[in-house]
Amino acid sequence: MAASTSLTAAQALIGRAVAGAGQSPAHTDRLALPTGFGLSALAGRALKTSARQQQRVARPRRAPMVLAAAVETLEGTAAAAPPALLEKSVNTIRFLAIDAVEKANSGHPGLPMGCAPMGHILYDEVMRYNPKNPYWFNRDRFVLSAGHGCMLQYALLHLAGYDSVKDEDLKSFRQWGSRTPGHPENFETPGVEVTTGPLGQGIANAVGLALAERHLAARFNKPDNEIVDHYTYVILGDGCQMEGISNEVCSIAGHWGLGKLIAFYDDNHISIDGDTEIAFTEDVSARFEGLGWHTIWVKNGNTGYDDIRAAIKEAKAVTDKPTLIKVTTTIGYGSPNKANSYSVHGSALGAKEVDATRQNLGWPYEPFHVPEDVKSHWSRHIPHGAALEKAWNAKFAEYERKYAEEAAELKSIITGELPAGWAEALPKYTPESPADATRNLSQQCLNALAKVIPGFLGGSADLASSNMTLLKMFGDFQKATPEERNLRFGVREHGMGGICNGIALHCPGLIPYCATFFVFTDYMRAAIRISALCEAGVIYVMTHDSIGLGEDGPTHQPIEHLISFRAMPNILMLRPADGNETAGAYKVAVLNQKRPSILALSRQKLPQLAGTSVEGVEKGGYIISDNSSGNKPDLILSATGSELEIAAKAGDELRKEGKTVRVVSLVSWELFEEQSDDYKESVFPSAVTARVSIEAGSTLGWEKYNGSKGKAIGIDRFGASAPAGRIYKEFGLTVENVIATAKAL
Amino acid sequence: MAASTSLTAAQALIGRAVAGAGQSPAHTDRLALPTGFGLSALAGRALKTSARQQQRVARPRRAPMVLAAAVETLEGTAAAAPPALLEKSVNTIRFLAIDAVEKANSGHPGLPMGCAPMGHILYDEVMRYNPKNPYWFNRDRFVLSAGHGCMLQYALLHLAGYDSVKDEDLKSFRQWGSRTPGHPENFETPGVEVTTGPLGQGIANAVGLALAERHLAARFNKPDNEIVDHYTYVILGDGCQMEGISNEVCSIAGHWGLGKLIAFYDDNHISIDGDTEIAFTEDVSARFEGLGWHTIWVKNGNTGYDDIRAAIKEAKAVTDKPTLIKVTTTIGYGSPNKANSYSVHGSALGAKEVDATRQNLGWPYEPFHVPEDVKSHWSRHIPHGAALEKAWNAKFAEYERKYAEEAAELKSIITGELPAGWAEALPKYTPESPADATRNLSQQCLNALAKVIPGFLGGSADLASSNMTLLKMFGDFQKATPEERNLRFGVREHGMGGICNGIALHCPGLIPYCATFFVFTDYMRAAIRISALCEAGVIYVMTHDSIGLGEDGPTHQPIEHLISFRAMPNILMLRPADGNETAGAYKVAVLNQKRPSILALSRQKLPQLAGTSVEGVEKGGYIISDNSSGNKPDLILSATGSELEIAAKAGDELRKEGKTVRVVSLVSWELFEEQSDDYKESVFPSAVTARVSIEAGSTLGWEKYNGSKGKAIGIDRFGASAPAGRIYKEFGLTVENVIATAKAL
Repeated sequence: MAASTSLTAAQALIGRAVAGAGQSPAHTDRLALPTGFGLSALAGRALKTSARQQQRVARPRRAPMVLAAAVETLEGTAAAAPPALLEKSVNTIRFLAIDAVEKANSGHPGLPMGCAPMGHILYDEVMRYNPKNPYWFNRDRFVLSAGHGCMLQYALLHLAGYDSVKDEDLKSFRQWGSRTPGHPENFETPGVEVTTGPLGQGIANAVGLALAERHLAARFNKPDNEIVDHYTYVILGDGCQMEGISNEVCSIAGHWGLGKLIAFYDDNHISIDGDTEIAFTEDVSARFEGLGWHTIWVKNGNTGYDDIRAAIKEAKAVTDKPTLIKVTTTIGYGSPNKANSYSVHGSALGAKEVDATRQNLGWPYEPFHVPEDVKSHWSRHIPHGAALEKAWNAKFAEYERKYAEEAAELKSIITGELPAGWAEALPKYTPESPADATRNLSQQCLNALAKVIPGFLGGSADLASSNMTLLKMFGDFQKATPEERNLRFGVREHGMGGICNGIALHCPGLIPYCATFFVFTDYMRAAIRISALCEAGVIYVMTHDSIGLGEDGPTHQPIEHLISFRAMPNILMLRPADGNETAGAYKVAVLNQKRPSILALSRQKLPQLAGTSVEGVEKGGYIISDNSSGNKPDLILSATGSELEIAAKAGDELRKEGKTVRVVSLVSWELFEEQSDDYKESVFPSAVTARVSIEAGSTLGWEKYNGSKGKAIGIDRFGASAPAGRIYKEFGLTVENVIATAKAL
Repeated sequence: MAASTSLTAAQALIGRAVAGAGQSPAHTDRLALPTGFGLSALAGRALKTSARQQQRVARPRRAPMVLAAAVETLEGTAAAAPPALLEKSVNTIRFLAIDAVEKANSGHPGLPMGCAPMGHILYDEVMRYNPKNPYWFNRDRFVLSAGHGCMLQYALLHLAGYDSVKDEDLKSFRQWGSRTPGHPENFETPGVEVTTGPLGQGIANAVGLALAERHLAARFNKPDNEIVDHYTYVILGDGCQMEGISNEVCSIAGHWGLGKLIAFYDDNHISIDGDTEIAFTEDVSARFEGLGWHTIWVKNGNTGYDDIRAAIKEAKAVTDKPTLIKVTTTIGYGSPNKANSYSVHGSALGAKEVDATRQNLGWPYEPFHVPEDVKSHWSRHIPHGAALEKAWNAKFAEYERKYAEEAAELKSIITGELPAGWAEALPKYTPESPADATRNLSQQCLNALAKVIPGFLGGSADLASSNMTLLKMFGDFQKATPEERNLRFGVREHGMGGICNGIALHCPGLIPYCATFFVFTDYMRAAIRISALCEAGVIYVMTHDSIGLGEDGPTHQPIEHLISFRAMPNILMLRPADGNETAGAYKVAVLNQKRPSILALSRQKLPQLAGTSVEGVEKGGYIISDNSSGNKPDLILSATGSELEIAAKAGDELRKEGKTVRVVSLVSWELFEEQSDDYKESVFPSAVTARVSIEAGSTLGWEKYNGSKGKAIGIDRFGASAPAGRIYKEFGLTVENVIATAKAL
């Protein structure tokens, strides 16, 4: 029992401990776990349910089952409120949202007002969670894909008893340093699973969460012990539905048959520009049926509580397809003059309309007031949640007893603890090892890691054989084989990124990788940025990383992509030059569990260079060769990836002519910038101003390392369609040009 | 007649003349129009059809109508080939593709082999075009959205008689400097309408082309003269269908009811990773019906010529909906061992399989051979195309006679000639003008331009009231009101970008703008990059351009976006600081017809600064104030956009303390870099090393202007949710910090 309790606590703690390493200060200083969230405190809380609370879980007038009559079909949940109390609870949610937006004079009241009924039913009747341990592994996941409506989620977390959203947090909505930012952010607010706001990302994350559940359930569940077993719920709006990413992920979710994914489509007919009639008249349900989903329509989402309940029951009964419940609601429900209009979407109601809404809904209370009976009704979730976790912990202890090996593996996935010595599995190379494309070397690393890291899985957006991402010892994750680890995303780059964010945030030990051509990061950039922001340690395997891909031409040749990711916060842009650097890049990527990594890899063959190393990569920039002494070379040549070979050769030539030349690999600018000033000076001594860089990409930004007297050789135009060697020559990315440029300095 | 002929020729010429200004050298040196493509040459060609060719147009054994019995339903097209010749022509297309890929040992033979039948029918029987004037305004547009199959299009252009794809061009497929690059590129190959390859972009472009046709037809057609009247055809594959962008644009195309858009879905069940069964099992036709399209299924796309013809006939008969014709084909049709497998998708067949395919299809010819009867059959398109254009020119002359005013307006749209003095319409400001957000100032410019430029139109991705993009004198472009100019894209950023590329490439005088929050350029980056590459002068109106947007928080606050676009080739990143700079940015954007512009605009109010000017913006960087003499200030402060105010104030303060300070606006780095060295030295004298920059974005790249001794104030972390003023203070973007930083230098 203690062992499994420690499991979930450790998971949460490891999540935090790792967070400190690779992120901006903003991420570390504001997110504090509730005090006493340690191992023993949690165990204590799970046990010390007060008598009064126990009573509430099993009320005298009901059966000892925790189910109310109205929702007796929803298994394993706490008792529902009687109708009047339910209505009151729903209005509490509405007014917490109204009041918080009003106080901040900023935010989106419309969605919470319309979605309060489904929100209430989900958090009060349906979902299984433990408010005092938001990281309990087997919790149901909830994603508010329409993230602008975050006050809905904050109100629900508050009522449910999460310590992350106290009364004062509601009152500091959208203020500096608060735990209730303008859109839901998992790294700010425990209880929020993912980071949403940019539309469509949330539904993609939800598909990832549901995939993770299905995969782990298939791998670890036993006929006598279904240790992994939760649902993923998501609310998405018209905006999400219009975004291409949502069609991508819903298409693949239908293909995968993710039966435990239940999506509520808030069909309120209003978007920022007005009625959806002006731009969105498609038949959404017909589209989803085409995508292989089960669909249900709740025509009265404002007061049709039983319809919502029935829809959820039906959705759960369909186990081989995800379900879309279209819930027709009124945006800003309750506001007499602004409901059903875009004016309630994204601004405070204004004092007058707030009053009118209080009048209209019969709400006599002060702002932010939670009526006692509502409070008392919701308070049962604390003991109920503790009981749920306790029961699961007992189940895990049983599982551990019977299936020790699987339990150990699952535990490592839940906690994110990497097996000792895992990095030893990475391949090693010498300058004598055969030349190879880094995409191929990458595949060796991927396969080595998948052997030793149980939560390692991933795939490509229909380019597996070009990106070289197949795990040879595993089959494809498919509807019939969800225990396998090769993900086939189809040509859906954006969705792939969003899904991987969901997988990474499901639990710390899942390490997803995904792949396409480097230039197509443009298709998935919004998802990659969310990886960086929400601290999802996704590994982006991006091959065909330059004009070196040749004939496919400028549409396929990245130019500005390296610099564009170097400028993105909290992400590692790595461009390894050979086998050892590729292994080093993977070591760094796996260790940075809270910071995504992008590996830019070559299509073309590259030699194994002397002087490259895993340790060098970990420093981001390092000297691979130097014939000077006293930290005073005549010249410093810097390069990354495929151009390091050119720099090394140019260095050799210049040394033959009697120069002292240092060759530096700048495989990751971010990691290099994190080194001490002394180390940086040891690589780039300020006294040495003769510097030349070479990289098959934009020269912008290289001034940082070349100084104002140095020179950058690169590409500041679009590429061309021709064999790679020819383009390199035409663009001046040659040993001869490096030598000539160096001599001209 | 001469006037209207000159119209189309002038259109082509202006296209070229403008091209020289704002693009990388690669774009200008390789694309030459056929010699003699001037006004008189064209007129001559249109008239001087040889007797032999004339005869071919109306063959002795057929009716004088140019229609063959088999396709008599397809109006206005040239005679179809009899069955045996048709089969031969189709095989010619297949083998041109096979041979070109084989010679290059690179490319995608599978699609051309499978789509040759529909390609043949389109180019030989259905489409109206003039091979000798690829820019004839009223031509039917064809887009190969599955751009990797470009050898299909090159083979068709070659057979049809386009001068851009001669025999030697086919033989230099995918080689340096050829006009047959690895994916279709409009700027390399006249006859290719847009730039495709990145999947899904082409169908988006096609929606834009169809929108342009519908809009212009609604504005200019008269009951007695339908002067604008063409179809837009597109071929897309499984890959395009999986991409989110294609769902976005097909949803809005269905909403708009673009009846003259006819899409062929090459349903071949194969993508790069293998059978589509592994990742793509949705019911595409059901989805399209949900999207409001008419759908047709041609079950035998390999040999069912009459079915293809019947489908096109049916599609044309449905005028209120776009049509998706699902054509089931065999990828690599004809290859005995590789057809219907991924191995034929993206690599040369190999000599052995090429031989086997020749055997299998009964093709005795040498590589690249076009049999005489095939050549002779296709040759009728030269006189026929000339006749089509001639007839249209006569129609235009008639139109001009009767509707002089409309004709003048349409002519300016067709040619891209801007009305004299258009820039005078832009608003002017003085330091006394009221402070305002640049997004509002932008709206003044948009409305001013729409008044004087007939081809100016655009809209927002559901943020019109935030982006401030509504044109007040026009209504919404909708199914029932296609003559209006406000486009309502819905929350479909990526699709919006792709559609605008299509509009911009429809004819030189259409200038589309589109809008969203600056951070959401991440959603549409792939389309923006195509704008830059394909020389589509789209104007991107990107508001909420920094942490200055405040409470929405880090998901909505751009950080790395400015630098990421500064690094992108052939695009202008402009960040104006006030009214005059916003007007200047629009002047630059309109003038750069072949280079897209991105305007980063503030949500928050900004003062009108002394010293800003339109002329300054045209130089990209310029001095707005200076109290030094002899080009030797003590300090240079640089800034862009909303931070220019901070720099100006800090400058004032420091001057009070006796320093000589220069304040520089660096509104567009790209334009500044294009100035002379003398000018650059006059702004940033190399002797002055005390330099501080301030910009609410990534500091990366600013070393270029600050030098190694200067200092950049910026933001190298994610933003935060709070009122804007507070974030500025917390992040050190203040007058005080600029002063302190300057003093520390």
